[in-house]
Amino acid sequence: MPIVHVTRTVEFNAAHRLHNPAFSDDWNRETFGKCNYPNWHGHNYILEVTVASEPDPDTGYVMDLGVLKGLLETHIVSKVDHRNLNLDVDFLAGMLPSTENIIVAFWKQLEPHLPGTIRLVKMRLAETSRNAAEYYGE
Amino acid sequence: MPIVHVTRTVEFNAAHRLHNPAFSDDWNRETFGKCNYPNWHGHNYILEVTVASEPDPDTGYVMDLGVLKGLLETHIVSKVDHRNLNLDVDFLAGMLPSTENIIVAFWKQLEPHLPGTIRLVKMRLAETSRNAAEYYGE
Amino acid sequence: MPIVHVTRTVEFNAAHRLHNPAFSDDWNRETFGKCNYPNWHGHNYILEVTVASEPDPDTGYVMDLGVLKGLLETHIVSKVDHRNLNLDVDFLAGMLPSTENIIVAFWKQLEPHLPGTIRLVKMRLAETSRNAAEYYGE
Amino acid sequence: MPIVHVTRTVEFNAAHRLHNPAFSDDWNRETFGKCNYPNWHGHNYILEVTVASEPDPDTGYVMDLGVLKGLLETHIVSKVDHRNLNLDVDFLAGMLPSTENIIVAFWKQLEPHLPGTIRLVKMRLAETSRNAAEYYGE
Amino acid sequence: MPIVHVTRTVEFNAAHRLHNPAFSDDWNRETFGKCNYPNWHGHNYILEVTVASEPDPDTGYVMDLGVLKGLLETHIVSKVDHRNLNLDVDFLAGMLPSTENIIVAFWKQLEPHLPGTIRLVKMRLAETSRNAAEYYGE
Amino acid sequence: MPIVHVTRTVEFNAAHRLHNPAFSDDWNRETFGKCNYPNWHGHNYILEVTVASEPDPDTGYVMDLGVLKGLLETHIVSKVDHRNLNLDVDFLAGMLPSTENIIVAFWKQLEPHLPGTIRLVKMRLAETSRNAAEYYGE
Repeated sequence: MPIVHVTRTVEFNAAHRLHNPAFSDDWNRETFGKCNYPNWHGHNYILEVTVASEPDPDTGYVMDLGVLKGLLETHIVSKVDHRNLNLDVDFLAGMLPSTENIIVAFWKQLEPHLPGTIRLVKMRLAETSRNAAEYYGE
Repeated sequence: MPIVHVTRTVEFNAAHRLHNPAFSDDWNRETFGKCNYPNWHGHNYILEVTVASEPDPDTGYVMDLGVLKGLLETHIVSKVDHRNLNLDVDFLAGMLPSTENIIVAFWKQLEPHLPGTIRLVKMRLAETSRNAAEYYGE
Repeated sequence: MPIVHVTRTVEFNAAHRLHNPAFSDDWNRETFGKCNYPNWHGHNYILEVTVASEPDPDTGYVMDLGVLKGLLETHIVSKVDHRNLNLDVDFLAGMLPSTENIIVAFWKQLEPHLPGTIRLVKMRLAETSRNAAEYYGE
Repeated sequence: MPIVHVTRTVEFNAAHRLHNPAFSDDWNRETFGKCNYPNWHGHNYILEVTVASEPDPDTGYVMDLGVLKGLLETHIVSKVDHRNLNLDVDFLAGMLPSTENIIVAFWKQLEPHLPGTIRLVKMRLAETSRNAAEYYGE
Repeated sequence: MPIVHVTRTVEFNAAHRLHNPAFSDDWNRETFGKCNYPNWHGHNYILEVTVASEPDPDTGYVMDLGVLKGLLETHIVSKVDHRNLNLDVDFLAGMLPSTENIIVAFWKQLEPHLPGTIRLVKMRLAETSRNAAEYYGE
Repeated sequence: MPIVHVTRTVEFNAAHRLHNPAFSDDWNRETFGKCNYPNWHGHNYILEVTVASEPDPDTGYVMDLGVLKGLLETHIVSKVDHRNLNLDVDFLAGMLPSTENIIVAFWKQLEPHLPGTIRLVKMRLAETSRNAAEYYGE
């Protein structure tokens, strides 16, 4: 039986700032440049989620992508959309919201809610059309 | 010698409907929602095909992508473009045309026609800008 | 006071076929080619709607784009999405569903429902990434 | 002599919030929904600027688009990129940062700096892939 | 009867260089910068052509976009695709191949071949995703 | 500790021609078709570079993507942008500039300059929106 991957893409708009309070303001400015500006900036984030399994013989589906969209909405998008990633999101609290750290946190947020027969393969978060992070659960 | 992957993208426009005749109309409506509407709907499908090998030292090519396009045209696109995926396509007959099932069928359709030195690595079919299926031949 | 234009984009997936029953099958095949194939094909249609007015001084809005999206949903998208444009849509009945004819019909469908202070400027319907029709109400 | 239009596209990332302090918090929440959330959100804004003139016979240019990019950088992008549009931008001070209001402010910011032979024709600001505002100076 | 616009998009890949032989090499380097480098550079040009008329009542077409594509192929694309715009194109001979000059030349190349009932409204040539020229025949 | 991948995208515009001087002109024309035309053609090349490591606990970064952009600029983009890939680029000298050969050469050009803690995972070069090559260092 073939193993097929399916990918669902969702978007959200959020504010953030890169700032590590364990270091001085000078260190933060030098390290993060414009991304450290005090009054926040933001992005149209694009999140792609890829899961895999044998397609169900009755439906032809690896997973109903409407169900996957619903899980993403409940556990991720509704918590980050139009929010401040430094201040407003329970599962990102105390975390430096780099694209790298966010995507690992999203993985932990989604994976426990997937059906047991489904393997979460990849999550990709694009911050701009030129910058993105990918996580494979490794 | 390095192994390089090359990817060729093609498009086609087709109608389809998700409906499993082994189940009741109610089950189909509940399972597939709008995708089960009786008079078909359709998509601009985008198909990406990735093959790999050492580049030929004389041409610098893994494979002439014009030749790959020709194989895709002959064995896939000419059979599905502007067609109904439930009714018109010999190699999809009797199959529920989910993106997952279609991409596995496309793989079987293309692979026997590739030159022996070329490895088919990945086929990806996007149904919309938000939904896609990928198959790696596993 | 400045006049500003705002544009909202929505998508839908539909099946159709170009066929004029007043003419012979031969004429239809010759005139419409692949678009005349009997069992339908389909597209991911992208609809852009542009309206204009002075921005409201209290909201900064020409028009709440969520309200515009709602009007589009009610009067257009809910009637065409995952439908057959030849068979299923009351306001397209008896009409050859070329992109040109559809966009004029969409204009008539939307315009009466816009607030009186808002001018409908342009509607654009892309059938593929290479083909589109635009209507300005002229 | 022909009149040609040229368009230059630039991007910036900013935070903002829709909130009119002349009205109650309830009115703001009801009017602006998610866009009113207190701790800001943000976007990858895409700004397109179109200018027109006869092409210079020596250069073939309506305007050196590198010069236009420089003017955009100096008078707009350097002031809004990675900034908070409600708090940080002198020329937006006291203004509700709707896409409509921003694009009119951008026009006033750029136009005085264009060479006299060049006509500013259009400015377009996309907040997301689905929402945009356009201004023609009228 | 409504007037509808239809737009067809085509692509071609070409080399060029901005250099005005009436001026010194120094002037050219200063004026055109990298675009003056001696051994050419190139682009994936995207050409959009918009024409308008009342849709034909029998076909629903402003113009068969396959016919428009054929005219573009014959009179423009076959002459510029994979060519050097400074050296190889009869209708660009002796012309500085700025995007502005090219689009005006394309207009003159296409317009005489359009059916009399069709109005050529706009031609747009994008040199990159950030730079484009538009011509309206004025 | 999680391993995260980050991807940075850059663009450049270059001319090239596919021609193998060890073979006859006839062989070259037959093998490479339009890509062999004598006076060059060109592309807007899009280069994506993916690197991986554990994110730094202080910065949340796999690698500062501004630093990666700088390395790409110094070692690749400044040498190929607005250049002729057959004639102007030291590290491509004597090489047939197929997308496959270029991407392997880019890998060798970049890899020695990456910090030791960073693994270069993938480089992808798109020549057009339909053709691309990928290299994984194998």
